[in-house]
Amino acid sequence: MATQGQVITCKAAVAYEPNKPLVIEDVQVAPPQAGEVRIKILFTALCHTDAYTWSGKDPEGLFPCILGHEAAGIVESVGEGVTEVQPGDHVIPCYQAECRECKFCKSGKTNLCGKVRTATGAGVMMNDRKSRFSINGKPIYHFMGTSTFSQYTVVHDVSVAKIDPQAPLDKVCLLGCGVPTGLGAVWNTAKVETGAIVAIFGLGTVGLAVAEGAKSAGASRIIGVDIDSKKFDNFGVTEFVNPKDYDKPIQQVLVDLTDGGVDYSFECIGNVSVMRAALECCHKGWGTSVIIGVAASGQEISTRPFQLVTGRVWKGTAFGGFKSRSQVPWLVDKYMMKEIKIDEYITHNLTLGDINKAFDLMHEGGCLRCVLKMNE
Amino acid sequence: MATQGQVITCKAAVAYEPNKPLVIEDVQVAPPQAGEVRIKILFTALCHTDAYTWSGKDPEGLFPCILGHEAAGIVESVGEGVTEVQPGDHVIPCYQAECRECKFCKSGKTNLCGKVRTATGAGVMMNDRKSRFSINGKPIYHFMGTSTFSQYTVVHDVSVAKIDPQAPLDKVCLLGCGVPTGLGAVWNTAKVETGAIVAIFGLGTVGLAVAEGAKSAGASRIIGVDIDSKKFDNFGVTEFVNPKDYDKPIQQVLVDLTDGGVDYSFECIGNVSVMRAALECCHKGWGTSVIIGVAASGQEISTRPFQLVTGRVWKGTAFGGFKSRSQVPWLVDKYMMKEIKIDEYITHNLTLGDINKAFDLMHEGGCLRCVLKMNE
Ligand SMILES: NC(=O)c1ccc[n+]([C@@H]2O[C@H](COP(=O)([O-])OP(=O)(O)OC[C@H]3O[C@@H](n4cnc5c(N)ncnc54)[C@H](O)[C@@H]3O)[C@@H](O)[C@H]2O)c1
Ligand SMILES: NC(=O)c1ccc[n+]([C@@H]2O[C@H](COP(=O)([O-])OP(=O)(O)OC[C@H]3O[C@@H](n4cnc5c(N)ncnc54)[C@H](O)[C@@H]3O)[C@@H](O)[C@H]2O)c1
Ligand SMILES: [Zn+2]
Ligand SMILES: [Zn+2]
Ligand SMILES: [Zn+2]
Ligand SMILES: [Zn+2]
Repeated sequence: MATQGQVITCKAAVAYEPNKPLVIEDVQVAPPQAGEVRIKILFTALCHTDAYTWSGKDPEGLFPCILGHEAAGIVESVGEGVTEVQPGDHVIPCYQAECRECKFCKSGKTNLCGKVRTATGAGVMMNDRKSRFSINGKPIYHFMGTSTFSQYTVVHDVSVAKIDPQAPLDKVCLLGCGVPTGLGAVWNTAKVETGAIVAIFGLGTVGLAVAEGAKSAGASRIIGVDIDSKKFDNFGVTEFVNPKDYDKPIQQVLVDLTDGGVDYSFECIGNVSVMRAALECCHKGWGTSVIIGVAASGQEISTRPFQLVTGRVWKGTAFGGFKSRSQVPWLVDKYMMKEIKIDEYITHNLTLGDINKAFDLMHEGGCLRCVLKMNE
Repeated sequence: MATQGQVITCKAAVAYEPNKPLVIEDVQVAPPQAGEVRIKILFTALCHTDAYTWSGKDPEGLFPCILGHEAAGIVESVGEGVTEVQPGDHVIPCYQAECRECKFCKSGKTNLCGKVRTATGAGVMMNDRKSRFSINGKPIYHFMGTSTFSQYTVVHDVSVAKIDPQAPLDKVCLLGCGVPTGLGAVWNTAKVETGAIVAIFGLGTVGLAVAEGAKSAGASRIIGVDIDSKKFDNFGVTEFVNPKDYDKPIQQVLVDLTDGGVDYSFECIGNVSVMRAALECCHKGWGTSVIIGVAASGQEISTRPFQLVTGRVWKGTAFGGFKSRSQVPWLVDKYMMKEIKIDEYITHNLTLGDINKAFDLMHEGGCLRCVLKMNE
């Protein structure tokens, strides 16, 4: 392509300061260096984690930065030594890398690759520990190793999943974060089995994907808990509970509803007191609670140790335990075969220029995922 | 036997009030009712849990009571409907019942039988919700469904493990609590695998049994942590760490020693800040921490939820997950075949009359288990 090896100037939404509206700017995107891939982003969705960092509550948030981590696009060019993708490949950038070489990848026990984490955590690229984004020479930080709120982005090759070129990018972009997180929490982390009773706290995209995963795993009851009754959509949920309708603590409500507690619970909000309730509504002897939500920094979970001594298990999950490069393409295939939903999570479609409106929508009851078209 | 159907008067150590020396009394032990077994206790050991209730810190402790739950004896008589044991059988009373009929027993997921728990928790027997112990007509509460600090005790039939009559009762009495708890925490709860790195907090009987279990599971490093260097006995421990030798928090010491953290950790003390350290010294991505220690009432564990979201797992165990009636006899057999240790945990032998001295010994560095001979 004509742009290979060149700096590309394109539109991106820049977060200059916490809580200040994003600004659509002309940004310079440097060519990919060794082990890097430059991607033309066609569609990106917004996730709660973007809003979390943008709000300033993330102590590791760096500004100015380009947010965004749930997207799909086409490889524009690759740096030296990149062999697994080439220009023209359809891809999903993955905030969880998968190098297949580090202690984590080789353990067979986790999807948390350690290869590029020190760089992505610092908002830069590994090769020279610098950013590929700048505006008139002033660097702009990367975010989560993805920065998809830009028409072009540069990511590490270990963070790129190559997918079926037939897949609609305006849909499968959701496989970059929320939907896999929910499905994987059920399939990989909790390993819910047929007949199990499941409680889900928070029915946003992540919680509804948990419901979908639990349904496909054969759960007998899927109890959805949300304080926003507008979220009482289906996705497999068999019963809805609004904590506001009860005087009792919600863990007691669920224990009473289920003759002793649920087999599995999932926290999909990021609220530490709900995390405690999610553990404590589990059945004595075997109930397992999985934390998915990201809590505000400094906040802690607590409970009486007796809860664990009597057999409850407390776990968590990141990206649903999926190995990104290996399994995101498989999830795309499952979508193409209609084995998992995506379209149903997309409640809004806007363009990059409307990104601040999209953030506003996230805080409204009716919104699950808003997908932005990048090349208006 | 001549005593069948009769009230037996025998010696027992009665705890009249928290923290007051136990008193050796003549106690009347009523005959077993339907589903009950009267046992002549020959040997009993003392466990930390006896001391905990005796100290008054256990909010569910009832006084006056007869403590004791780590013992062995011979069936003296059985009540109506008892089929699995008969007079003369050698047995170990089990504070974890196993009825094989309740929701818990049938789940296949836990050893926490629910059959007699409401009675044992209230210091009485299920049949008439009364005690079988009295002194001149005044009832004395049962404890943990076992009350082994008495020459005769009455227990529910679901709480009696029938064992090899060849087994030395002065040794296998330890299979009533501490040793199985440690071994089972490794084998059943954590499922430690070959090559794993293990950290053990607290090297009393429970902690050392964890070490023995980890060694037999093939752990590559077994790091023992205790503030009492006298506890640095072997039992499979490969490295000793005394937190007092470091300025850093103990979790950091262990993370540094192990290039990122341990695969499994076990808390065998009952200290909530150590429980947190035990979780936080686990390796990101897969480290699993098991709580065994019983904390003082009202105390809570806490940590940042990020610890779990990044892959650590927090669990607990009661009686090491062993099904008591089914598996205690198997543990006795393993001891008889020299596959597990018991003798090495017994540091003192006294008689029932010396029980207060035995409690004093528990708080001294040199004592693991003190076994009391009952029929002086
Ligand atoms: N662990 C991971 O890998 C991972 C990945 C993606 C997202 N997340 C996190 O998962 C969480 C959920 O993400 P999302 O995109 O679905 O968010 P969302 O905001 O769309 O959904 C959250 C839901 O929780 C409900 N809620 C809020 N407070 C509640 C309460 N006290 N009780 C019951 N319901 C309550 C809201 O009404 C909303 O429906 C966020 O914290 C996000 O950061 C984690
Ligand atoms: N979950 C169960 O089923 C179960 C069964 C039996 C015992 N327990 C509990 O397990 C715990 C251990 O029992 P035990 O009989 O081995 O007790 P113990 O008192 O013999 O051993 C405890 C050890 O911890 C050490 N210790 C104390 N504070 C420490 C600290 N801050 N850091 C490091 N080491 C410290 C002591 O020096 C001692 O060696 C107790 O809390 C007991 O109640 C639980
Ligand atoms: Zn996300
Ligand atoms: Zn890796
Ligand atoms: Zn005990
Ligand atoms: Zn039972």
